[in-house]
Amino acid sequence: MKTLATYSELIENALRDFNLPQQPANLYEPLNYFLKLGGKRMRPILTLLAAEAFGKQAKDGLQAALAVELFHNFSLIHDDIMDAAPLRRGQQTVHEKWNANIAILSGDVLLVKAYQCLANYEPATFQKLFTVFNQTAIEVCEGQQYDMDFEQRDDVTEAAYIEMIRLKTSVLLGCALELGAIIGGADTMAAQQIYRFGEQLGLAFQIQDDLLDLFGTEAQVGKQIGGDVLANKKTLLSISAKSLANPSQGAVLDQIALLENDAEKIAQTQKIYHELGAKSYCESKMNVFHQEALKALDQIESQHSKVAFYELADFLLNRVH
Amino acid sequence: MKTLATYSELIENALRDFNLPQQPANLYEPLNYFLKLGGKRMRPILTLLAAEAFGKQAKDGLQAALAVELFHNFSLIHDDIMDAAPLRRGQQTVHEKWNANIAILSGDVLLVKAYQCLANYEPATFQKLFTVFNQTAIEVCEGQQYDMDFEQRDDVTEAAYIEMIRLKTSVLLGCALELGAIIGGADTMAAQQIYRFGEQLGLAFQIQDDLLDLFGTEAQVGKQIGGDVLANKKTLLSISAKSLANPSQGAVLDQIALLENDAEKIAQTQKIYHELGAKSYCESKMNVFHQEALKALDQIESQHSKVAFYELADFLLNRVH
Repeated sequence: MKTLATYSELIENALRDFNLPQQPANLYEPLNYFLKLGGKRMRPILTLLAAEAFGKQAKDGLQAALAVELFHNFSLIHDDIMDAAPLRRGQQTVHEKWNANIAILSGDVLLVKAYQCLANYEPATFQKLFTVFNQTAIEVCEGQQYDMDFEQRDDVTEAAYIEMIRLKTSVLLGCALELGAIIGGADTMAAQQIYRFGEQLGLAFQIQDDLLDLFGTEAQVGKQIGGDVLANKKTLLSISAKSLANPSQGAVLDQIALLENDAEKIAQTQKIYHELGAKSYCESKMNVFHQEALKALDQIESQHSKVAFYELADFLLNRVH
Repeated sequence: MKTLATYSELIENALRDFNLPQQPANLYEPLNYFLKLGGKRMRPILTLLAAEAFGKQAKDGLQAALAVELFHNFSLIHDDIMDAAPLRRGQQTVHEKWNANIAILSGDVLLVKAYQCLANYEPATFQKLFTVFNQTAIEVCEGQQYDMDFEQRDDVTEAAYIEMIRLKTSVLLGCALELGAIIGGADTMAAQQIYRFGEQLGLAFQIQDDLLDLFGTEAQVGKQIGGDVLANKKTLLSISAKSLANPSQGAVLDQIALLENDAEKIAQTQKIYHELGAKSYCESKMNVFHQEALKALDQIESQHSKVAFYELADFLLNRVH
């Protein structure tokens, strides 16, 4: 296994070499801009890792990795319109810098370009890759729709929330790994298990993100603590707190939601989530998904080099205690 | 060759049997609604026609035909947002009936579903279909971008306008035919010629549409005459009129554009377009593309059943004289 930085460099080079046409400029300039905003490139790295683990070279996974990264960026561009988000990675979003029409259309063509990368494999492999990728693309759209729907609702259950984040974020991690596994020549069983590893790890990672947003340090998360609470965002923390609260604690939660002093709102939320056991509940949920991810990995026969995946799970999930 | 109604019925049945999931309702209900708005289903019919002409049965082309029709509807849903269009086929557009976010996301998933239909062919055929389809999808996005760009510009040349309509509308006709030809087992040369037939016929048809909009009868076009003129829309007519006008005629064109009485504006535009020779110029352009389409058809070896295509060209282009 190479270091993550090595894989990341392969991705960055491929993105740099990915020649978008010059014209129409209003279609392609926004994409050049957006693809250069960076990011951890976690998803395409997973594809390279898996291609290598199952017996091919990392570079053999590069076109599928690009497909995953382009798809991810397509979904970000469109999600940013829907969320009316002004910034992405500290820079203006496409619909802010240009306009919503341009963001819709350049997102569309980016999705098409993502598919095009997949077609660089020979027909039988291509069709297998396509099937996984396409199913995932549908699920990501469904997840985004549930996310928008849930913003308008006060009765979102834990199960519905988990299913939403599974669709919206985790399946793409599973897909990224499975594409690499298919390219690497994995059998169907192994490909499915590596998908499940990614999916379950993604769920654990998302819950960790929710936890860090309120209980982490600014150094850990690279931004101010408590953003989700201040935005009254639904997270597993807020949902489980609500369901763990008795009526009088529920009334306290409602009062805290109305607080106008940011620091006080965050501090009181931290306090009551501790008292309700919401924090430890989410930590245990996170661990369950983490263990499920490792179980999936254990199912894969050991002639394959699985060490990279165990290391990856450690790397992604050792930020919170 | 069956009658067009027979092909159309095959498409309508396939669309009816096309099972979209129930949930999330805000993602899939808009699609069920939009796909039921109808339309001539011209593009998928082309696919069935071609599949049959090149030696398979029409039903063998059905999944590719669906892909083309779903893609077309995806592009309409997104275009309607960009054009802020309130109505489509006399009914509310998706972004009007729901909202823009829902229209973006259901459009996205419809594009993904279009790809999924293509994957119903065996790998080698699928990859060929995919290559044509994907290139076309990119071009349609480019055409829509040029169209939006041109709305802001007063210096659009005839060549740029023709290239815009080629990308925005004609390539999908070529693609629809080529997909059918590939399924039918056409060789590369024949597949390319049938593509060119559709592309050139599409250009002729679009110019005919522009002509009918101003010089047709309401019975012919099924709506009020002069809509393009009243909306100050760029068409080959308006572009060629401008380029044929001398300075004083140019001043008259500018004055007519400012007229506030609809009937007068339409009548004066008709008159000056006649005088400038813009009408006959466009008619001759239309004929050039029509002849190019027929030439492409002539190139295809005659063991294939080409009669349907000659009939199609007659059917599409005998509405204006």
